[in-house]
Amino acid sequence: MSAIPKPPVPGPLNPSRRLLLGPGPSDVHPRVLAAMGMPLVGHLDPEFVAMMDETQDLLRYAFQTTNRMTLAVSGTGSAGMETVIVNLIEPGDRMLVCVNGVFGGRMVDVAERAGAQVTAIERPYGEVFDPEEVRAAVKKVNPKLVGIVHAETSTGAWQPVEEIARIAHEAGALIAIDTVTALAGIPVEIDAWEIDAVYSGTQKCLSCPPGLAPVSLGPRAVEVLERRKAKVQSWYLDLSMIQRYWGSDRFYHHTAPISMNYALREALAIVAEEGLEARFARHALNGRALHEGLAAMGLSLLTDPKHRLPQLTCVKIPDGVDDLTVRRRLLKDWGIEVGGGLGPFKGQAWRIGLMGYGSRQSSVTLLLSALETCLRDLGVSVPPGEGIRAAAAVYSEAAK
Amino acid sequence: MSAIPKPPVPGPLNPSRRLLLGPGPSDVHPRVLAAMGMPLVGHLDPEFVAMMDETQDLLRYAFQTTNRMTLAVSGTGSAGMETVIVNLIEPGDRMLVCVNGVFGGRMVDVAERAGAQVTAIERPYGEVFDPEEVRAAVKKVNPKLVGIVHAETSTGAWQPVEEIARIAHEAGALIAIDTVTALAGIPVEIDAWEIDAVYSGTQKCLSCPPGLAPVSLGPRAVEVLERRKAKVQSWYLDLSMIQRYWGSDRFYHHTAPISMNYALREALAIVAEEGLEARFARHALNGRALHEGLAAMGLSLLTDPKHRLPQLTCVKIPDGVDDLTVRRRLLKDWGIEVGGGLGPFKGQAWRIGLMGYGSRQSSVTLLLSALETCLRDLGVSVPPGEGIRAAAAVYSEAAK
Repeated sequence: MSAIPKPPVPGPLNPSRRLLLGPGPSDVHPRVLAAMGMPLVGHLDPEFVAMMDETQDLLRYAFQTTNRMTLAVSGTGSAGMETVIVNLIEPGDRMLVCVNGVFGGRMVDVAERAGAQVTAIERPYGEVFDPEEVRAAVKKVNPKLVGIVHAETSTGAWQPVEEIARIAHEAGALIAIDTVTALAGIPVEIDAWEIDAVYSGTQKCLSCPPGLAPVSLGPRAVEVLERRKAKVQSWYLDLSMIQRYWGSDRFYHHTAPISMNYALREALAIVAEEGLEARFARHALNGRALHEGLAAMGLSLLTDPKHRLPQLTCVKIPDGVDDLTVRRRLLKDWGIEVGGGLGPFKGQAWRIGLMGYGSRQSSVTLLLSALETCLRDLGVSVPPGEGIRAAAAVYSEAAK
Repeated sequence: MSAIPKPPVPGPLNPSRRLLLGPGPSDVHPRVLAAMGMPLVGHLDPEFVAMMDETQDLLRYAFQTTNRMTLAVSGTGSAGMETVIVNLIEPGDRMLVCVNGVFGGRMVDVAERAGAQVTAIERPYGEVFDPEEVRAAVKKVNPKLVGIVHAETSTGAWQPVEEIARIAHEAGALIAIDTVTALAGIPVEIDAWEIDAVYSGTQKCLSCPPGLAPVSLGPRAVEVLERRKAKVQSWYLDLSMIQRYWGSDRFYHHTAPISMNYALREALAIVAEEGLEARFARHALNGRALHEGLAAMGLSLLTDPKHRLPQLTCVKIPDGVDDLTVRRRLLKDWGIEVGGGLGPFKGQAWRIGLMGYGSRQSSVTLLLSALETCLRDLGVSVPPGEGIRAAAAVYSEAAK
């Protein structure tokens, strides 16, 4: 008999139906869920190898790159961040990190653990960097690598990166960008912007479950990787080995998460079917309808309209309203998940995601309606029906 | 318009039905596949938090431990290996690794990248270590950590570890074991054997897709972790942070792979329903039937019967038979996957897995029958029907 007895055997798995309008995971497309449930083939099966090739081509389209080293790391978006950093940084290398939210802050921590000499420049949460600030810092620090977040999941700020990539290159540095929340929601142009390294996650605008991290390295970054003196500190995230596993020699590294790769392939096929332009236009439209609706209800958005993401909106919680009371009720009565604030926004803001499959008119209408009811019941003065009316006007205008 | 045009949009995902009898991924239980396809809740949803608690209890049962720090890392089995090593090793620490196959060898590489001074002792592929050899090496090296593989996926060798744990402790060292292929297939007694650190994977005897790495640390290992001078070099695999995410304060770390966690919970529930004793007996019976069947066909097994795993069998490829010809035909005509050899066994051996849901009489019978046909068609002299008869005799005997 076992020394440690059986725990109570839990009943059947029966997750409640949610409308995931938080910062991720986002609502997963039904076709992607179906892919997750398909029977497995082996990770060296010719069918799986062909599927990995298809996935790489589809990922190159999503990233708008011809980079050969474009693949999915077998971990979540944070593993993608660590992959880029540990492959490009050797102990003692200088790295400049632009921090205007949680994920820039995380980059500093990851880089320090990789032995980098990190210099961080900061902007308040919700703001973005002016290229001139970055230029001044690059001049001072002379870094090997500049890291910046394209779409800050903690604030909803949309950071233009093209000019910053130019600044990095003028100083002989590489540029790495975090597109976890950006990819397939707003334009990401790896080749046109000359980005050297990029990572993302599956659980945002790709509408795939969390579990993989798309990564792409351009020629300058590959050269840095090939010229390393020391081995990459992480065996699991060593791109030179992972590349050989994805590549034509199919060199055994680890066992790829088969089902997650099925899901990513299906999610990327859906992106290609829709087309990037149509997808960005859809995200922009639904984001605008949400922003207009929230404003018409008298709520304040925390990011300047010039740098506001359509797929992730940070809205100020009205004075006197308790964060958790509202979020719990949205979840309980409507099955809607929205996110709480992070860092200085904790308890001060909600984060509303309209990502991938979740970016649709019905999400906007239901959320605005439910939120209006919640706030009115808490005694907040909300003009009746104004939020929905303002959103509807955006859709009518777009349909003309 | 996008600069990088759309690749051809691939047709519907339609993986062929396989019987996965290789070294992993193993055949996934239908209930686990169903769990993979269920709609997602958020990773901070109260339902998901409750599910993670259930999963921890079920994992403790599978590992036979009361260790509080028992959880699943969001990567595959190799990420589990790296997790244990980078959390317990600081630069300059001495580690002794016992290498008798690919995965022991991998441990050396991972530990060196973590800055350990590694001493490796070796046994030929397919053999196991005598505790006295380990004792001598421990005396000489005086390591902080001893690492050994419990069930070598590359050879099918079953390494007893209890005595080696005692030897490590007598010298003041910690013991870490790799149970990727062992867990839920043969007894793994973390508390009774006083194992300090253990990791596994989901895609072997748990019959869950690859993608998570169950890990458990005992009190001595937790103390070492808590007293570290340097931060863990990997942010993604830092157990002190991951523990807080799984723990009651639910401190945000990364976004857990929701669907994979559904699957693991379901797979572990199935283990608890069956019960560990019954599960081990089933693996032992099917393994014995396979071994008897292969021997009756005139094939040689590469591991000594005293140290032969029931869930992974390394069988010598008969002289003059081409490895790939047979494996390709098994896959094409019967949809059966078996594995090729690794390292010195490449082209010399097949690896046959009977793991978790795949460990059943029908797998044994179909494989023996198909293999007999393949070999006969290649001109190998195989006594007709003897393999199946010998396997059937094992089942008859067991049914008495």
